[in-house]
Amino acid sequence: MPPSDPTIFDAILAGDIPCERIYENEHVLAFLDIQPLSRGHVLLIPKQRAAQLHELDEDHAAALGRALPRLARAVIHATGCRDYNVLQNNGAPAHQAVMHVHFHIIPKNADNGLALEWNARSLTDAPELGTAIRAALKQDPR
Amino acid sequence: MPPSDPTIFDAILAGDIPCERIYENEHVLAFLDIQPLSRGHVLLIPKQRAAQLHELDEDHAAALGRALPRLARAVIHATGCRDYNVLQNNGAPAHQAVMHVHFHIIPKNADNGLALEWNARSLTDAPELGTAIRAALKQDPR
Repeated sequence: MPPSDPTIFDAILAGDIPCERIYENEHVLAFLDIQPLSRGHVLLIPKQRAAQLHELDEDHAAALGRALPRLARAVIHATGCRDYNVLQNNGAPAHQAVMHVHFHIIPKNADNGLALEWNARSLTDAPELGTAIRAALKQDPR
Repeated sequence: MPPSDPTIFDAILAGDIPCERIYENEHVLAFLDIQPLSRGHVLLIPKQRAAQLHELDEDHAAALGRALPRLARAVIHATGCRDYNVLQNNGAPAHQAVMHVHFHIIPKNADNGLALEWNARSLTDAPELGTAIRAALKQDPR
């Protein structure tokens, strides 16, 4: 993978730009989103500089996974809101604004939080598509 | 945490209901969503029966995190679409339909994929909210 360009999250990780830090370990940092969709909207980022999820190494990916339930429990406890969305966007067309991997934890209230539209289709090419994805997994060099 | 009720995903995990399986290991299973938002829409679920993310144990949470980049690379390779959203919904108000944790990997194309609205606000109670979430993390029994 080509190295990613630095972003504002590098400056946050370095402490050069302040943030309201929630959690930190060897691999990840979590802090409050300064433009929240709802109260308790938290961002969780890897310390590996990677623009998109598919570029992450296994240790950082596992650390992100491990941190998500812990953070969700803390956000639920602090906000009292038990419903939430976890969202991670890859690519500008998919609404990614900062090109460093970040997971959003977004409490969902009646009048705020993440607004989704769900325009589902039918799965019509399952065997061929499944075969293609399984083949790609087998050939994955990592 | 109270035990969760069984869902259709238990039947899929048991092999009693067929699915187009993409990937499986000790902790997780991935398969094609039968009601995709776009071509290559994959679901990734833990083998632990847990309705919501904050109920997951660390091993399953880490395994989900570890699997996501691998699956994303394979979906990109098989579909040719480099943009995608990763979404995990908790609670019916947050659009959760099946009450067993599941991560969506949803390729984003110009005319299909996940449609989002982003109604951001300002962060006005950072120190108090940050203190409350950090305190909840410290008191987390896990």
